[in-house]
Amino acid sequence: MVSKAFEYERKVYYYETDKMGVMHHSNYIRLFEEARVAFLENAGLPYSSLEACGLMSPVISVQCRYMSPLSFDEKFVVETQIDSFNGFRFEITYKIKSRNSGKLCAEGNSQHCFTNKAMKPIRIKNNYREIYDLFESCCND
Amino acid sequence: MVSKAFEYERKVYYYETDKMGVMHHSNYIRLFEEARVAFLENAGLPYSSLEACGLMSPVISVQCRYMSPLSFDEKFVVETQIDSFNGFRFEITYKIKSRNSGKLCAEGNSQHCFTNKAMKPIRIKNNYREIYDLFESCCND
Amino acid sequence: MVSKAFEYERKVYYYETDKMGVMHHSNYIRLFEEARVAFLENAGLPYSSLEACGLMSPVISVQCRYMSPLSFDEKFVVETQIDSFNGFRFEITYKIKSRNSGKLCAEGNSQHCFTNKAMKPIRIKNNYREIYDLFESCCND
Amino acid sequence: MVSKAFEYERKVYYYETDKMGVMHHSNYIRLFEEARVAFLENAGLPYSSLEACGLMSPVISVQCRYMSPLSFDEKFVVETQIDSFNGFRFEITYKIKSRNSGKLCAEGNSQHCFTNKAMKPIRIKNNYREIYDLFESCCND
Repeated sequence: MVSKAFEYERKVYYYETDKMGVMHHSNYIRLFEEARVAFLENAGLPYSSLEACGLMSPVISVQCRYMSPLSFDEKFVVETQIDSFNGFRFEITYKIKSRNSGKLCAEGNSQHCFTNKAMKPIRIKNNYREIYDLFESCCND
Repeated sequence: MVSKAFEYERKVYYYETDKMGVMHHSNYIRLFEEARVAFLENAGLPYSSLEACGLMSPVISVQCRYMSPLSFDEKFVVETQIDSFNGFRFEITYKIKSRNSGKLCAEGNSQHCFTNKAMKPIRIKNNYREIYDLFESCCND
Repeated sequence: MVSKAFEYERKVYYYETDKMGVMHHSNYIRLFEEARVAFLENAGLPYSSLEACGLMSPVISVQCRYMSPLSFDEKFVVETQIDSFNGFRFEITYKIKSRNSGKLCAEGNSQHCFTNKAMKPIRIKNNYREIYDLFESCCND
Repeated sequence: MVSKAFEYERKVYYYETDKMGVMHHSNYIRLFEEARVAFLENAGLPYSSLEACGLMSPVISVQCRYMSPLSFDEKFVVETQIDSFNGFRFEITYKIKSRNSGKLCAEGNSQHCFTNKAMKPIRIKNNYREIYDLFESCCND
């Protein structure tokens, strides 16, 4: 069973373009983050509540493939899903599509672990059961 | 007496350009910050030593006038000077010039106060005498 | 007579924060641009239609005063108005307020001229009458 | 035979940090670009000469793994190498190390193709022989 992806939407800002006239490739990594924050908030896991528990989820790795460039002011959607979660790490996948054409512009993923404020990795299954359950409930399997 | 301005130099990065093909205007504010950090370090006031004293110097205001755009890979210099300092606030001025043409591309300034870690404004004359003296010594008057 | 300001709204992105834990001061200049683009589109002057006419409106100057920092995920509004327009130049003013507290966080302005694609300044009164009239109609006087 | 990697060096700027107090993960993708531009210039392939030939080399994909965060003002080096090249595509790998500690902070790669100004992919072996030879000469095999 695959749950429907969360959709995060906005337009390309002028300052995100580069001299090729399209969104600079580094900015897609920032879109991933924007979409991730909105996705987690939507799942009942806003950043503020994780932070209040002393939990952080730094990025371990990120990758992105670029298919078709986005232009200034073009509306796009970032389809966002948790792909895997084991109480220790999770992976989120992203598909960025032009809203008008429906064209797939870029896709990628990011991997994260959980740490305390001191950046020490931790398992959340026992000590953060409510957060564990929310993560599991929004995971695709 | 006006002391010689400190010179901070580098080239324009690709990701700093926008679809007009030149450095995006917001990035000049970032150049001001880069130049300011280098200027203060050069004056014996590296960020780390201010921070070690519990001092911060947030930006109160900034302004910039744009004369001639910088292109990708173009080498430029930021001429940086403290314009005023009263133990409570200081103002830094910046002139950004193309290294090749010598042309003035942008000029501006930023105003700063001193605060403690809790962002409460403080006077540095009595409690941070060494820092006060260093600021005064690199000020133009 | 002063027309009601246009309101542009969003939240602070994580990547817009800096090590002080708040939105980096350079990003307010980018918010001005976002708000300006939305304001002009709302006024019937979308970037695409200006561009289709061969018109550009580069930034001549910008300034910003910082009163109270915005935090990650904080919702804010940019109140945007054209302050002056003479067919050759225009100035836009911005007030950034926290949506929750209503507190004024920053305010500033940007000045622009009109140019053709070759960046040559032009007057729009005679050759771009429809655009001239739209600008005048959304101006405060 | 593996050639020595090209080294690109600078410090972390203040505006590159985020509220975790370290360089934001998206900025490493920008460091890759800075290092790539410097690497290619050093290899006799400055952007301006590629552009003068009507050649572009857009990013097809990028990935980065994060090991240890870089702090504000920390000096780092980006070790940069062409890993593969076939006249049609090339891949560059990057290792970012703290200059002081020598610690590996991040590593990644980017893949690129060659296109003309209209973004149409092209092979450079026949029509751009000089560029082809320069690329081959700085490739590790």
